[in-house]
Amino acid sequence: MKKNQELNEDKESLIYPKTLSGFRDILPSLAITKEDMIVKIKGVFRKFGFVPIETPHLEYTEILLGKGSDEIQKQLYRFLDNGKRDVTLRFDHTVPLARFVVQHKNSLGLPFKRYAVGNVFRGESPQSGRYREFTQCDFDFIGTYSITADSEIVQVIYSSLKALKIDDFTIFLNNRKIVNGLCEKINISHKVSDVLRIVDKINKIGAEQVRLELMKELELSEAEVDEIMIFITIRERDHKDNFFKFIEKYKGYNATMKGGIEELEFMYQILRKVGINSNNYTIDFSVARGLGYYTGIVYETTLDKMPQIGAVASGGRFDNLTKSFSNDNLPGVGASIGIDRLITALEKLEVISSSQTPAKVLIANLDESYLAESYAFANTLRNAGIAVEVYPEVSKIAKQFAFANKKGHEYLIAYGEKETITFTYILADLKNGDKIPIDSIESLILKLKE
Amino acid sequence: MKKNQELNEDKESLIYPKTLSGFRDILPSLAITKEDMIVKIKGVFRKFGFVPIETPHLEYTEILLGKGSDEIQKQLYRFLDNGKRDVTLRFDHTVPLARFVVQHKNSLGLPFKRYAVGNVFRGESPQSGRYREFTQCDFDFIGTYSITADSEIVQVIYSSLKALKIDDFTIFLNNRKIVNGLCEKINISHKVSDVLRIVDKINKIGAEQVRLELMKELELSEAEVDEIMIFITIRERDHKDNFFKFIEKYKGYNATMKGGIEELEFMYQILRKVGINSNNYTIDFSVARGLGYYTGIVYETTLDKMPQIGAVASGGRFDNLTKSFSNDNLPGVGASIGIDRLITALEKLEVISSSQTPAKVLIANLDESYLAESYAFANTLRNAGIAVEVYPEVSKIAKQFAFANKKGHEYLIAYGEKETITFTYILADLKNGDKIPIDSIESLILKLKE
Repeated sequence: MKKNQELNEDKESLIYPKTLSGFRDILPSLAITKEDMIVKIKGVFRKFGFVPIETPHLEYTEILLGKGSDEIQKQLYRFLDNGKRDVTLRFDHTVPLARFVVQHKNSLGLPFKRYAVGNVFRGESPQSGRYREFTQCDFDFIGTYSITADSEIVQVIYSSLKALKIDDFTIFLNNRKIVNGLCEKINISHKVSDVLRIVDKINKIGAEQVRLELMKELELSEAEVDEIMIFITIRERDHKDNFFKFIEKYKGYNATMKGGIEELEFMYQILRKVGINSNNYTIDFSVARGLGYYTGIVYETTLDKMPQIGAVASGGRFDNLTKSFSNDNLPGVGASIGIDRLITALEKLEVISSSQTPAKVLIANLDESYLAESYAFANTLRNAGIAVEVYPEVSKIAKQFAFANKKGHEYLIAYGEKETITFTYILADLKNGDKIPIDSIESLILKLKE
Repeated sequence: MKKNQELNEDKESLIYPKTLSGFRDILPSLAITKEDMIVKIKGVFRKFGFVPIETPHLEYTEILLGKGSDEIQKQLYRFLDNGKRDVTLRFDHTVPLARFVVQHKNSLGLPFKRYAVGNVFRGESPQSGRYREFTQCDFDFIGTYSITADSEIVQVIYSSLKALKIDDFTIFLNNRKIVNGLCEKINISHKVSDVLRIVDKINKIGAEQVRLELMKELELSEAEVDEIMIFITIRERDHKDNFFKFIEKYKGYNATMKGGIEELEFMYQILRKVGINSNNYTIDFSVARGLGYYTGIVYETTLDKMPQIGAVASGGRFDNLTKSFSNDNLPGVGASIGIDRLITALEKLEVISSSQTPAKVLIANLDESYLAESYAFANTLRNAGIAVEVYPEVSKIAKQFAFANKKGHEYLIAYGEKETITFTYILADLKNGDKIPIDSIESLILKLKE
């Protein structure tokens, strides 16, 4: 078998072009959309004073696994490099951030707000819409315990989705301290993570099944389970403006519960004042996903029209971020916007353009002798701020029209001797087939900038 | 030894935070600069109608090594993944492009112009300014033999550097066909790649040494070496406007030489007309670097004030791009802008801002009771297009000023009860220490937008 392969290679047989399972190419129309979305999201990050940083795609495994669970380990792209170092491709932006802030703390100054947009790698079983390499847009606020920072993360999620022209979304809020306080009250603090794990299934298996599992698996009494069930079915939207009045009574449980509720109250004070739409966020005590990693307020954002694609932006407070690297622990709060999921959703909602080109106009060439002039003409338009593509050869005009239609240019201008001499043009509108006569380059620029 | 390590881990000893040798973090001020530069370069790519695409960071080794030399093989990050696939981190954007165009040819349509900005990995010995992971900005024009495409690549290099406010650079041009034609003329076509390898050293070892090596290593006669030396010392700038007249006589050598010269002439026809500064490009027959991979016109760009950092943008025509993957070979021409080298140069020229924040203003907080109002105030400024950071806690005003000075905000506004009630502010200019009284939010926005 091996020999056959070698023989084939000797004959310089062709290599079949393919990507690895779970990896993908991003083709022009999607790549244009993705790049435009990232520009908008970065614009929001910057407007809130978050700065970009970059960390390597490859790190010492020891650095990345400091906090990794067994499950995560199986999904790693881990190997020995040529210098026999045990290295791993990053699987998120959070662990590298922890290393980064400890390593560069003195030059950064605290608090420190960073964003990181880049790809991470997980060897999960590929499935629809899930890839082994995908893009995460993380933003984090390091070095303050103030809930103002938590509220800012929610504002950034809100503003980012709005910047992407997405209006129908809900940011679901909860606080890890509420679950902690509840378990403390019924003396099952040692079972908090199991409670979270089971409660997390509520949307899949329903409240009744969650009740059964809590009783069986955790050996809780009916009264204990009742307490939990009452809590996790508390939703702000069932109480409207009376919500905080309604949950006021629970503050008496213990200091943890009281603290958890007061943090949410303070966050609401800010969210109510900063002018964001209160339809886009709500408190829901059943939100459990990821709570295990977090220490305070958490959030999970879903698109109202397609909750089934899962959370498109989630995060929370994690006050033990840097404990693997430093005894001076740094508090942090942050979130991640799932750009790939958002794109999947926008594709399904059919709001993504199918254009394969950023150029508004194609200059078609009619005459070999005027190619240089055609390029000069294109540059005049570019200097006026218009994106222009020039068909690089003289060929049949029908072929050049077909090219523009395939790529998605809005307009085509055929260029030759007449255009060079008279400075008049026929602008072909490729959407409706109109041929618009234009009597000067100035009018053309005005028309194209409409 | 192993046991000790395990013991340490049990004790939860700290992990020393460090990056791999040859890898690096990019800190805020540099990351802001790099991101801004890439936005400008992508803007130029798009204006010329190039589209973004993305290919995975990880590919089958077989795909990437189709054309790899032994030297490149040693520098690979190559390993078996969990599914025992032989995989490699990409070492450039060109081989993945070849796979991509063959794989997606039908949906793309030809000609196809793409850009790819992303990181590549090479295990070279780390040295000053060279990293094992670095960013390449590639742009390529696939599917046409027309020299108009070659000229467009040169225009894009020119416009990109101009967009970065770099004026003092030179794009050195040559044509692989000229060297081929010369070797054909003196009957040493089988030695072309050796000639190129030796000629490439001219800037390091000087013309006299190149002459000696050509004679000794390649066993060429004195007459043969003379012919080569005459050629490789031909520089357009020694002949000014008479250059093409001067080299006209060499067209008689053979069809290859004639074709090579005519291609340069046609390219010049376009470059002269499109309004780019002729001081920024010139023909130099000693340009040999990379010629081995190319089949036509090549270019290499250096910064006039720091030629020592090497080429910051180079490329050329490679008409055998896809031969590993398809019998329908596709011609291509493209170049790569070395963003990391450009940043190194700009750092040395001290034109990079040291600001660690994209936010123009820091809102300092004076009063716990007005934190929510302070965030609302910040959002009003953001909605007017101003990037604003809010200090997340109430602390001593001196500490908040020190923070702003460290991060590099231009202005600070202290916010508390008075500001909430009167809508008047004191704008502290952190560059000169001025305190500017502002009597309304509208005046503040105007001032900050100046």
